Amino acid sequence: MTSSRVVLTDTDSGVWLDSWKIDASNGPHLSGGSHWSINKKTLRGGLADGVDVVTLDSGEISISVLPTRGMGLWRGVCRGIPVEWRSPVIWPVHPRHVTMTERGGLGWLYGFNELLCRCGLSFNGPPGNDNGTEITLHGRIANLPAHHVSAEVSDHGPGVLSVTGVVDEAGMFSPALRMTSTVRTLVGSTAITIHDRVINFGGQPTEVELLYHTNLGRPFMEEGAKFVAPVAEVAPRDEHSARGLDRYNRYPGPVAGIPEEAFFFTLQGDATGQTTVLLKNAAGDKGFSMKWSLAELPCFTLWKNPAADADGYVTGLEPGTNYPNFRSFERERGRVIKLAPGQSIDTALTIEVHDSTEAIRQVEDHIRSLQKSEPVRFAGPHRKFSAGVE
Amino acid sequence: MTSSRVVLTDTDSGVWLDSWKIDASNGPHLSGGSHWSINKKTLRGGLADGVDVVTLDSGEISISVLPTRGMGLWRGVCRGIPVEWRSPVIWPVHPRHVTMTERGGLGWLYGFNELLCRCGLSFNGPPGNDNGTEITLHGRIANLPAHHVSAEVSDHGPGVLSVTGVVDEAGMFSPALRMTSTVRTLVGSTAITIHDRVINFGGQPTEVELLYHTNLGRPFMEEGAKFVAPVAEVAPRDEHSARGLDRYNRYPGPVAGIPEEAFFFTLQGDATGQTTVLLKNAAGDKGFSMKWSLAELPCFTLWKNPAADADGYVTGLEPGTNYPNFRSFERERGRVIKLAPGQSIDTALTIEVHDSTEAIRQVEDHIRSLQKSEPVRFAGPHRKFSAGVE
Amino acid sequence: MTSSRVVLTDTDSGVWLDSWKIDASNGPHLSGGSHWSINKKTLRGGLADGVDVVTLDSGEISISVLPTRGMGLWRGVCRGIPVEWRSPVIWPVHPRHVTMTERGGLGWLYGFNELLCRCGLSFNGPPGNDNGTEITLHGRIANLPAHHVSAEVSDHGPGVLSVTGVVDEAGMFSPALRMTSTVRTLVGSTAITIHDRVINFGGQPTEVELLYHTNLGRPFMEEGAKFVAPVAEVAPRDEHSARGLDRYNRYPGPVAGIPEEAFFFTLQGDATGQTTVLLKNAAGDKGFSMKWSLAELPCFTLWKNPAADADGYVTGLEPGTNYPNFRSFERERGRVIKLAPGQSIDTALTIEVHDSTEAIRQVEDHIRSLQKSEPVRFAGPHRKFSAGVE
Repeated sequence: MTSSRVVLTDTDSGVWLDSWKIDASNGPHLSGGSHWSINKKTLRGGLADGVDVVTLDSGEISISVLPTRGMGLWRGVCRGIPVEWRSPVIWPVHPRHVTMTERGGLGWLYGFNELLCRCGLSFNGPPGNDNGTEITLHGRIANLPAHHVSAEVSDHGPGVLSVTGVVDEAGMFSPALRMTSTVRTLVGSTAITIHDRVINFGGQPTEVELLYHTNLGRPFMEEGAKFVAPVAEVAPRDEHSARGLDRYNRYPGPVAGIPEEAFFFTLQGDATGQTTVLLKNAAGDKGFSMKWSLAELPCFTLWKNPAADADGYVTGLEPGTNYPNFRSFERERGRVIKLAPGQSIDTALTIEVHDSTEAIRQVEDHIRSLQKSEPVRFAGPHRKFSAGVE
Repeated sequence: MTSSRVVLTDTDSGVWLDSWKIDASNGPHLSGGSHWSINKKTLRGGLADGVDVVTLDSGEISISVLPTRGMGLWRGVCRGIPVEWRSPVIWPVHPRHVTMTERGGLGWLYGFNELLCRCGLSFNGPPGNDNGTEITLHGRIANLPAHHVSAEVSDHGPGVLSVTGVVDEAGMFSPALRMTSTVRTLVGSTAITIHDRVINFGGQPTEVELLYHTNLGRPFMEEGAKFVAPVAEVAPRDEHSARGLDRYNRYPGPVAGIPEEAFFFTLQGDATGQTTVLLKNAAGDKGFSMKWSLAELPCFTLWKNPAADADGYVTGLEPGTNYPNFRSFERERGRVIKLAPGQSIDTALTIEVHDSTEAIRQVEDHIRSLQKSEPVRFAGPHRKFSAGVE
Repeated sequence: MTSSRVVLTDTDSGVWLDSWKIDASNGPHLSGGSHWSINKKTLRGGLADGVDVVTLDSGEISISVLPTRGMGLWRGVCRGIPVEWRSPVIWPVHPRHVTMTERGGLGWLYGFNELLCRCGLSFNGPPGNDNGTEITLHGRIANLPAHHVSAEVSDHGPGVLSVTGVVDEAGMFSPALRMTSTVRTLVGSTAITIHDRVINFGGQPTEVELLYHTNLGRPFMEEGAKFVAPVAEVAPRDEHSARGLDRYNRYPGPVAGIPEEAFFFTLQGDATGQTTVLLKNAAGDKGFSMKWSLAELPCFTLWKNPAADADGYVTGLEPGTNYPNFRSFERERGRVIKLAPGQSIDTALTIEVHDSTEAIRQVEDHIRSLQKSEPVRFAGPHRKFSAGVE
């Protein structure tokens, strides 16, 4: 096995490549196929000016990674199917244009448009004052640029393409967390795997909250689309969502001004703790699945925002170390990780696109096999999941 | 008629030109003259680093447009006369350096130095909490960069030079407004016309406030300078301004530390609703006029800030869809526009420089012709215009 | 004497050099030696992207100046000894990534990692509302980029290397202050001198606070390291610091989570008002001294933060025009400077590295010679220095 690694950004040595590309014409022979590439570009103009985009293309799925925005995934395309949603914010927003303190701590929303963005690392959930610390919506990580970025091609198996970024979320008198994220695909595959390691490089124990805000619109979400998961428990976040509990796993078409709903879950997994969830379209011939370890990401949140297309018709499939409640509540419920100095957590998350009825049936069969017991459905917000419930 | 258009910035296709120029030497023959040009530069260093400047030069007037700052007009020169004011903030400030939430929501003032900047699009006026939404001074549009910018030269008539920029003011769970602004001049002319279209590209009705904060210092403003307008009604904004009502249309020389005054107007127009206002210097040989439609911009505010030259000796001539009061008051008075999804408003504003007694007399004659009835002068703040008045 | 000056940045004329270097191979012959240089680079990637660094190297000491961060000194190296501290924030942070209003006005701390950064110009100390003005921690100057930067080499004496930057801290309806800072070294020297001039270029009297937050970690600070100064008075900032008064001039090794201490001083000087302070390591063979005029910078603060190395094991030696208390208290105590329009203040500060027992003994002898009277030691916080004390 041989592999070659190119440094795209490195603050220490002053490296930054404006654009760069490797594919079958200038890279190694990979047994999985010849239509692969890794392509680095820099966006220009508007709020996107200066945003780095690294696109991995397996030949079947391409995914655009944003080192400038905390290694989020902007959007993808799989065999012609867009893997994305349409936010009113059209292009990735450079973090220097995002002021977290705007809109009463909701400024994060001015930069929200990715297929996958992380909420964390030190806090996520709504803004507020947590024991004297002012925290803002969904934390800092999605608006912190990587100081080291590299791309790698290996001829292992069918060929492996990856991009790795290192992002520090640190400050004086503040947690010092470093995330090393690798986004990887195999040549010829329709799947993408994200491996993240978050280490406390500070000198004191520090809290971590990490949630993968994975967002999809059309064509996976549409009227009649369905969410499928091996549910252990499900509870509506609030009274409004409770009114939608009966149809929590089905999607309506867009409704202008409809308020969002959210549901909190515990899921069932296989013997090794791996679980899988699926979003499939009405016809059942286009699906998006996610696979991860419940030991790493025990909490799952489903966010339903079937607003007008122009306002962001979108649903969020959100595995996390916690639910996106205010941090003090999550701490109280024992769902905030505490990392000792030098200690780290690892997560792995695989997303995959399925474009045939047969492939989707297989995923559903697998999910059914994980469902060992009847789901518990809480009719209203439950004190285990939601604050302010007796 | 032939015209050629060059894209200077386009986020979608990754275009951005650091510098670019067209003039008689490399452009078309224009019948209005040969001393015209369009010149694109990028500012470097300090808070201005990265700001795009596109300068249109008709041969008689040149004007510098700032796509990076919401298509504001930085400053101009007409036949050697500076068309500008002198803010303590010397160069245009890149929006990434402006934090709206500083100074208790007045952070906008750290970037304020243009001949013309827009206040809006979703709100303008003072900061505060409007029904649960934190709004900041004068809104976002002046600190949002265009994601598409093009320049055009046409041989229509004497020759037409223009620059067009598209700026999105949008966010998730936030209004989605798009402004397309064209700044245009005719070869040989001393006038500049601004055409703006603001469209609601979101899926729900949304509010719009738009005010053209047009600011002038010397030589148009000076001791003895005069403001001339076809006044229907005039009211001081507050008690302090009321004490200056008698001399509202005349200017003193600079006075260090003098508090600003503001006056709210309704104006009279011609049969088609067009109105004109004028600022002329003491000698009456240098004038700056503005022309627009009262149907588009029914509200006019005069801002007088005859402070020390070093602090910004300046007056603002401000046509708008509203007065720059807190949005909730303007809404109450029916002066906040509500745009349905897909709906848009259009505005056109022409500014012109006059450099002879004769030319200025003609503008004054025209304004006099618009004055069909006696102006109503309110001695104090009036409940139609100012909040907190019984 | 001949000297040559190169403009590295100038907003007015559009100059900005990405990289540039002068040394003995392309510069003048300097009698002090041939191992000198001035080297300009631009940092790339992460939060440091776009930060200009100008490194002066005397042959014995090199120091990296940050025009992008208000002419702060990032770090130095003297004869192989690092002159720095290690913040959890590893590289200089571009001001566009620093939002002062985060963390309840403490956002400044997200960009804090320099050997020397200025706190000011209009205010320093903690955040809060000072008579209607919202101020944020330690002011704006450290996060404002210079709009004019030049480097100069002169063959005067052994050869003089310098970099000069001009930084405006201004805004509409806000103080208008301009700092011109020159950082200079002599070829063959181990010392660096900083000359700053701050002028009020506004039209009204305005307040100034200026403190040189000079920060050192290993190897100068370590267990057994000592602070030496000609103390007139010393008072602990607060009750917590009071408990450390007995050992205020000695340093422990790192202790994870230890709270910071601060001490306020008046110092003694020579007949011309010059004073000197020293930080020396345990063995007494590595020392860092600072020299300045008590007429210019009468207030001295010692900040002790012997936290875990990973959290920033650091001490601050901080001469200033004031103590870093909230501005209203400093104003009350008469320690806020008021500059009339056009008026300026000048400061000069020399830092020097000493790497032998003998050299350090000489500095200590000199400090002892300045100590003309017994130091007054206040057992607890004193009303002269700390707010809230009766």
